[in-house]
Amino acid sequence: MTDRRRKFYGWGYEDDAVTPAEIGEFETAWTRLLGVEKFEAVPFPTLDKIAIREPRIKVPGALSSVCTTDKYDRLYHTYGAGTVDVAKAIRGEFRNPPDVVAYPQSEQDIVDLFDWCGTNSLAAVPYGGGTSVTGGVNPPDHDRYRGTVSIDMKHFDKVLEIDATSQSARIQAGVLGPHLEKQLKPSGLTMRFFLQAWEFSSLGGWIATRAAGHFATAYTQIDDHVQSLKVVTPSGNVESKRFPVSGSGPNPDRLFLGSEGALGIITEAWIRLHKRPTHRAMTAVKFTDYDKAVEAVRVLSQSGLNPANARLIEREEAEYTGSSDGTYDILVLGFESADHPVDHWMARALEICAGFGGKWETESLSSKSAEIADAGANSWRQKFLRGPYLREYAIARGVMRETMETAVTWERFAALREHVKAETHRAIREVTGRPGSVTCRFTHIYPDGPAPYFTWFAYGDKSRLAEQFMAIKRIGEQAMVDAGGTVTHHHSLGRDHRPWYDKERPELFCTVLKSAKHALDPRQILNPGVLFDPS
Amino acid sequence: MTDRRRKFYGWGYEDDAVTPAEIGEFETAWTRLLGVEKFEAVPFPTLDKIAIREPRIKVPGALSSVCTTDKYDRLYHTYGAGTVDVAKAIRGEFRNPPDVVAYPQSEQDIVDLFDWCGTNSLAAVPYGGGTSVTGGVNPPDHDRYRGTVSIDMKHFDKVLEIDATSQSARIQAGVLGPHLEKQLKPSGLTMRFFLQAWEFSSLGGWIATRAAGHFATAYTQIDDHVQSLKVVTPSGNVESKRFPVSGSGPNPDRLFLGSEGALGIITEAWIRLHKRPTHRAMTAVKFTDYDKAVEAVRVLSQSGLNPANARLIEREEAEYTGSSDGTYDILVLGFESADHPVDHWMARALEICAGFGGKWETESLSSKSAEIADAGANSWRQKFLRGPYLREYAIARGVMRETMETAVTWERFAALREHVKAETHRAIREVTGRPGSVTCRFTHIYPDGPAPYFTWFAYGDKSRLAEQFMAIKRIGEQAMVDAGGTVTHHHSLGRDHRPWYDKERPELFCTVLKSAKHALDPRQILNPGVLFDPS
Repeated sequence: MTDRRRKFYGWGYEDDAVTPAEIGEFETAWTRLLGVEKFEAVPFPTLDKIAIREPRIKVPGALSSVCTTDKYDRLYHTYGAGTVDVAKAIRGEFRNPPDVVAYPQSEQDIVDLFDWCGTNSLAAVPYGGGTSVTGGVNPPDHDRYRGTVSIDMKHFDKVLEIDATSQSARIQAGVLGPHLEKQLKPSGLTMRFFLQAWEFSSLGGWIATRAAGHFATAYTQIDDHVQSLKVVTPSGNVESKRFPVSGSGPNPDRLFLGSEGALGIITEAWIRLHKRPTHRAMTAVKFTDYDKAVEAVRVLSQSGLNPANARLIEREEAEYTGSSDGTYDILVLGFESADHPVDHWMARALEICAGFGGKWETESLSSKSAEIADAGANSWRQKFLRGPYLREYAIARGVMRETMETAVTWERFAALREHVKAETHRAIREVTGRPGSVTCRFTHIYPDGPAPYFTWFAYGDKSRLAEQFMAIKRIGEQAMVDAGGTVTHHHSLGRDHRPWYDKERPELFCTVLKSAKHALDPRQILNPGVLFDPS
Repeated sequence: MTDRRRKFYGWGYEDDAVTPAEIGEFETAWTRLLGVEKFEAVPFPTLDKIAIREPRIKVPGALSSVCTTDKYDRLYHTYGAGTVDVAKAIRGEFRNPPDVVAYPQSEQDIVDLFDWCGTNSLAAVPYGGGTSVTGGVNPPDHDRYRGTVSIDMKHFDKVLEIDATSQSARIQAGVLGPHLEKQLKPSGLTMRFFLQAWEFSSLGGWIATRAAGHFATAYTQIDDHVQSLKVVTPSGNVESKRFPVSGSGPNPDRLFLGSEGALGIITEAWIRLHKRPTHRAMTAVKFTDYDKAVEAVRVLSQSGLNPANARLIEREEAEYTGSSDGTYDILVLGFESADHPVDHWMARALEICAGFGGKWETESLSSKSAEIADAGANSWRQKFLRGPYLREYAIARGVMRETMETAVTWERFAALREHVKAETHRAIREVTGRPGSVTCRFTHIYPDGPAPYFTWFAYGDKSRLAEQFMAIKRIGEQAMVDAGGTVTHHHSLGRDHRPWYDKERPELFCTVLKSAKHALDPRQILNPGVLFDPS
């Protein structure tokens, strides 16, 4: 826990500032990417300048100790962290804030909040870390509801129990990444679920949105880490038993993994952990032929070597992040283990890469420590973690940066990449009247296909950036789905991905989900508009 | 496909006989285990001696080409392959045969069968290979239904499409193990899902029951192999899209993995495959301290080495299977790869074993071929595959052999093993009046716990063997569940495991499953009595 307050319009704490030097560096990169000579920033909003609708509902006395209608709290819970969210926040647009923000301290508080919402037709929006980039935590805009209560789980932030023998722990779902790791540290265990939003996203959010983390192979999705769950629903608690694996009927946890807050609030989970790695090897492999690089990664994905990191970054992207001069693609390759030196693993992986023309600096190879890892890999990694801090500064300057990610079988990947890049380039030109940048890397790899991650930049009109952004995104997502990719590998569905999700999931499965909703949340208070519309 | 006919009362084809020499060998083992000097066998039943109820329903003309009421077909589809099934079959008890057996040739045939069943209150029991040991394919005994149609999927036996690049194939769900592998062979790919019932169980059965296969780690459950599914339900088809992974909401396939035939009939699946291994190393490690052997396997499970085989067999079991003299426990340890020699993997695994007092024959180590593998390991493996063929011969002699399997976190394992062994020994003595044998091995291991597999032998009364068997099993299963294990890791639920499943799954999750049933099978025709009772 901390007394520092989060920005209500952007990433991080109020005192987290990006330095002028960093901004200068990024402006230089954006100039090169977008051909814009000079950027002018609109100012960030301040609390006092924003008008906010009065709460439409009154908190009952019994709930007053866990609820607030404070202006800051309501503004802060109006948006997630997507470009549309930040763009609207920066222009001071907070049309649909939650009426009340609740900070339950116990499961009984959640039950009481559900009862209140149910009897008063209020929408209940579960809130973990607020880092959704898909409209997952925004109050719904639907006549059915008389108001919205944002339920912030921040007080559920404890590691309750550690079973070091079975390498697992019972953890409250509201805990954010750093506080989770801090509590695990004395045990020598770690969750190692270092997604880009790690600092400000919660365990419950990872589970509800099926996030993916640190490992490029094997333990990629949160699904693999969940041993059991406890969920509070308006119809009662659902608590699964704790087993390494079971074959007893459909897995109950799988109903809540990806439930996006629509079926209940996850309060606790038993989570599988790892020992802190003591052996590491990292390097960056350069390829001059992208298709061959992809082949190398495919063979690697099917080798059983299970690298912890295997991020293939195409040359354009590696260039603007400073790890390539633009003549070669980079594969950031890493192995780690708490059990054994990983030299043999790395040696075989590099043998595979060499077979496809890959080259690497031999001095970058080290299984002593990740610190001596390749400078190119490090440079990329730093920018990866710093990424979200830049978003509001980019948007204030009219720069849109979006990432669209998917997973696709290997045989469809080349055509998918070509189509997504072509269509997104076309969309950027049509919407903004000028060219942009669209590049691809892999975040995770599987024996049957990669998880490609497209990053695009465009320079738009600051007064209607949110709308331009969605216009471009719609075309890019459609291209990705048309080419056989899933609408999301790990960014979640929220409300923004609904149009594609509605076609991706089997129609009858939606009927089943609606029945599950009816059983668990008969008054349809929970996060309306995700997965399907309220009836 | 074959013209050979399966035995209607036991394992394998009618011309599959166990040799007198094999029987002699087993009788010697049983004498040692059970203290019975001489075994007398009741004869196996013959078709002509069995009286069978007339079909209670008439096949409509339009379905006559895919349906039969032939006596053999009905007897053969009356039971699965469990001890109760075989014991009843051997004593000629076929009280509740299906009235009709259907062999659909197309999905439309299945739809037509569902329509017929739905409008006539008939139970529809999906039938793959018929190897259920938990009462999963037996016609239900419930007033609600006017008759039972067993739907045998044997004509759905083709590999329809192979994507060698993404190492996956689209496969019809009725195919049995050997025919599946035969069709894959030219591609160099293999499913390697070699469970004990591999010869006679079907892909659809593996999926519907969440079977586990060849690999002791990593790719253990069928869940890991399923890329997408096609399911025909009474409400329509559910067909999921094919991705390496997706984060789009709850995974639709997970509803049908473990659905036990109650929600639809799986007709096709895209399945993840492996390249045929070209590098192998196998050995058998001996331990004189069982607790230390368990510790070695735990460390191995958490090492990231992912052995293909890691079966720890306690000394009593290793002794009667001929791979130990009874003074040491055996860890059958194997690595395999299609990519790289596995010597380094094996070397590190043995280093771990050595740390806990493990010893092995150095000449048994070879990464050239599995053929030079340790004799002890091989001896056990042969008996593993031959096991099911013995069942009817054992039962005809009054010998019950059951396997009860579970998964449990590491910190609970020692107490679980002690409790299950003590309780099952007690049950055998109480029920049969004489001592029996109860031993434990691991079939699969996970970083958070093993899948212990208990084998027990008891000598009973041939005239009421089915009842004695269930009386013992009930106590053993209860002990397993009381000690924190799941009711099944990979043997499925069927109807026999319902009493424990009903307590294992969260109550509200059962409500959700019933809603799913209502959505997909509103007339409740599909496999009544599995997962929950018909309303």
